[in-house]
Amino acid sequence: MAKVVVGMLGFGTVGTGVIRLLGETSGLHLKRVAVKNASKKRALTAPCPVTENPMELIDDPEIEVIIEVMGGEHPALELLRAAIEKRKHIVTANKEVLAKHGPELFKLAAAKGVAIFFEASVAGGIPLISTIHKGLEANKIMQVTGILNGTTNFILSSMEEKSEDFQTALAAAQALGFAEADPTSDIEAHDVAYKLSILTALAFGSFARAEEIYRKGISSISPEDFRQAKEFGYRIKLLGSTSRKSGGLDVRVLPTLVPLSHPLANVSGANNGIVVQGNAVGELMMIGPGAGEMPTASAIVGDLVNLATALKLPDFASYFQAAVSSEWAKLSDPGDWVCPYYLRLYVHDHPGVIGQIGTIFGSHGLSIRSIIQHGVDDGHASVTIVTHAVKEANMQAAIQDLSKKEFLKRMAACLPIYVSGN
Amino acid sequence: MAKVVVGMLGFGTVGTGVIRLLGETSGLHLKRVAVKNASKKRALTAPCPVTENPMELIDDPEIEVIIEVMGGEHPALELLRAAIEKRKHIVTANKEVLAKHGPELFKLAAAKGVAIFFEASVAGGIPLISTIHKGLEANKIMQVTGILNGTTNFILSSMEEKSEDFQTALAAAQALGFAEADPTSDIEAHDVAYKLSILTALAFGSFARAEEIYRKGISSISPEDFRQAKEFGYRIKLLGSTSRKSGGLDVRVLPTLVPLSHPLANVSGANNGIVVQGNAVGELMMIGPGAGEMPTASAIVGDLVNLATALKLPDFASYFQAAVSSEWAKLSDPGDWVCPYYLRLYVHDHPGVIGQIGTIFGSHGLSIRSIIQHGVDDGHASVTIVTHAVKEANMQAAIQDLSKKEFLKRMAACLPIYVSGN
Repeated sequence: MAKVVVGMLGFGTVGTGVIRLLGETSGLHLKRVAVKNASKKRALTAPCPVTENPMELIDDPEIEVIIEVMGGEHPALELLRAAIEKRKHIVTANKEVLAKHGPELFKLAAAKGVAIFFEASVAGGIPLISTIHKGLEANKIMQVTGILNGTTNFILSSMEEKSEDFQTALAAAQALGFAEADPTSDIEAHDVAYKLSILTALAFGSFARAEEIYRKGISSISPEDFRQAKEFGYRIKLLGSTSRKSGGLDVRVLPTLVPLSHPLANVSGANNGIVVQGNAVGELMMIGPGAGEMPTASAIVGDLVNLATALKLPDFASYFQAAVSSEWAKLSDPGDWVCPYYLRLYVHDHPGVIGQIGTIFGSHGLSIRSIIQHGVDDGHASVTIVTHAVKEANMQAAIQDLSKKEFLKRMAACLPIYVSGN
Repeated sequence: MAKVVVGMLGFGTVGTGVIRLLGETSGLHLKRVAVKNASKKRALTAPCPVTENPMELIDDPEIEVIIEVMGGEHPALELLRAAIEKRKHIVTANKEVLAKHGPELFKLAAAKGVAIFFEASVAGGIPLISTIHKGLEANKIMQVTGILNGTTNFILSSMEEKSEDFQTALAAAQALGFAEADPTSDIEAHDVAYKLSILTALAFGSFARAEEIYRKGISSISPEDFRQAKEFGYRIKLLGSTSRKSGGLDVRVLPTLVPLSHPLANVSGANNGIVVQGNAVGELMMIGPGAGEMPTASAIVGDLVNLATALKLPDFASYFQAAVSSEWAKLSDPGDWVCPYYLRLYVHDHPGVIGQIGTIFGSHGLSIRSIIQHGVDDGHASVTIVTHAVKEANMQAAIQDLSKKEFLKRMAACLPIYVSGN
């Protein structure tokens, strides 16, 4: 059988994994790799010529598939566009390009009759894309929620286990290579927002604009929050979520309390864990490595093998291509969200404070499930509140009212609580 | 687009779910359903003629796909054989037929150029088959281990939570509809053995003969085992496992201690949970409903939709068909297994007993990691031992030696311990 000829843009960690794994895979021939700096020292030698001119791959009529593992928005976007124009099929790990330009690229691919495979762009080695796209084909997807960033999960796990503050845990993660020198994209949750944009396209048919996704990172979480959350039976995780609501799609990423008994609470270290809710299957959960050289290569080479086999079938692209709209998704108003909340505040320890808090909550229709007050030595008290399911807009209004009160010293945390099946 | 015409053999719980879900699915036309007793009262009315003669489906040239949800070995085997002979594609939930006759049926399907889809036969709504077959295509699968039977997981969860004995928990499960009137296939783990036979075919290319699979049910587990296991940091689960070993394939199902921190330990109630180990991805875990009307229908209709789309592609069967040998798998000698063990025994409380146990273990090269002795009021003592990884044959020899000693009152439990990544 003739081998399928592929070219690869990029040769970093993931590209290295792809080359390693291709060595064990038949039916594929890597003809050429394009890099920014061909003389850079790498972990292994490519089994093919390495060029600094990507157009050598894109203009090569023998190459049928382009693997894109360079990452970043530019020049990846321009190269992908050029490759699709030349009717190359695409296998990409680039979440940023898909989140920012997915509608355009999928529209172009449909016009050119080629397929874009992107299993590696979300959740690394976990075959989440194929599970939603093919495994749960009979389901109407209702919600996809999960731990989609290994770096922040590693930091949160360390903070809890070692009772470390955020900066200490971040520095340790950087020293171990689990966090980058500039960790902004991970800790401020831009990375998760990109992945949610893609998951939204897959589950609901349209990409969400990453900048419209409600986003809150982990830098304000303190070890005290882990202790308080545990007292109520929860663990704090950075959860990304996309779900179908009546007012549009609800897409958001923020630190969230997860019940200790839920498997999501037990996804530790650099792993990812995702819950998919379908109307027929109910809740399905996947846990696995969300990044790393070989897991990500597993996703890319898996796409390649599936694509290579399918290439023998005429006109297969429509079968494999995710049905994605060329419009952006309409997102719901965050104020309309409904879920239980966890609040932690410091107050001046005066008589009647709990009563005043209760009155404010009541005036906004917020129902308190439990409240714990701990005295603090310096005349202050820490108050932790867990509410029943409440509307976000009402919660924010109550916080506004609270912030005007003299008894409030500091609002330490206000985090939603994950409800399974909601 | 012309609809794909399908016929269904069987109209029980799963068949009912399939009809419900097909009502929301386009592109498929259910033409006829065959049942044993057409006048039986059912939860819903079929949207098509119901016959007692299955050959009306099999001989109908318009029907391209046969859904088989009748279950059991006969007459399902004969009907599937006849349908494949007539070049019908098959979507089946029948683990027993596949486990007992998989090699023959796949060989016949290959000869006739048709595909057998069987996502629903293992782990209900969890798309485990497509994940191993397509999602992890680039991986060499090393091991598949998991909780594959919801009934026994429900019983074990109840026993632990309510400190109930096995018979009480079984009766409660039967009353709730989670266990059948004759629960033998579930509690003696025949059901899991069938599923392991199929997973072995998928992961390693050949079906395992169900009767050759090492199998031990849950009826001998006691609430005391849950308490002791917890003291050592474990929970007891019925784990099925198929893995690649040097002497052949290691396929087995038996109650196993799982570390409390592992997500498998937190798969509770009627859920299934499976860990797949691939050489590139590492560990991937899936958790979800392993049975039930709509989850199982989700798997069947998912197969149908994927098949229906693929039918537009000429000669697609070779792409979708799992590569399965017509030979049965060669299984390894259970004596060669290596893993840590948990033992619980009752002894006469004489001086020197612990020393004698230690000597017997040492003489078989078994290394003890921890040992706890609790005095019991009546002059006996309970001894619980956790070993390091040991060879099964040596463990059995040590148990033989122990059973000859006068100090042994009773061997209460001898269970393996699950080691992640092993």
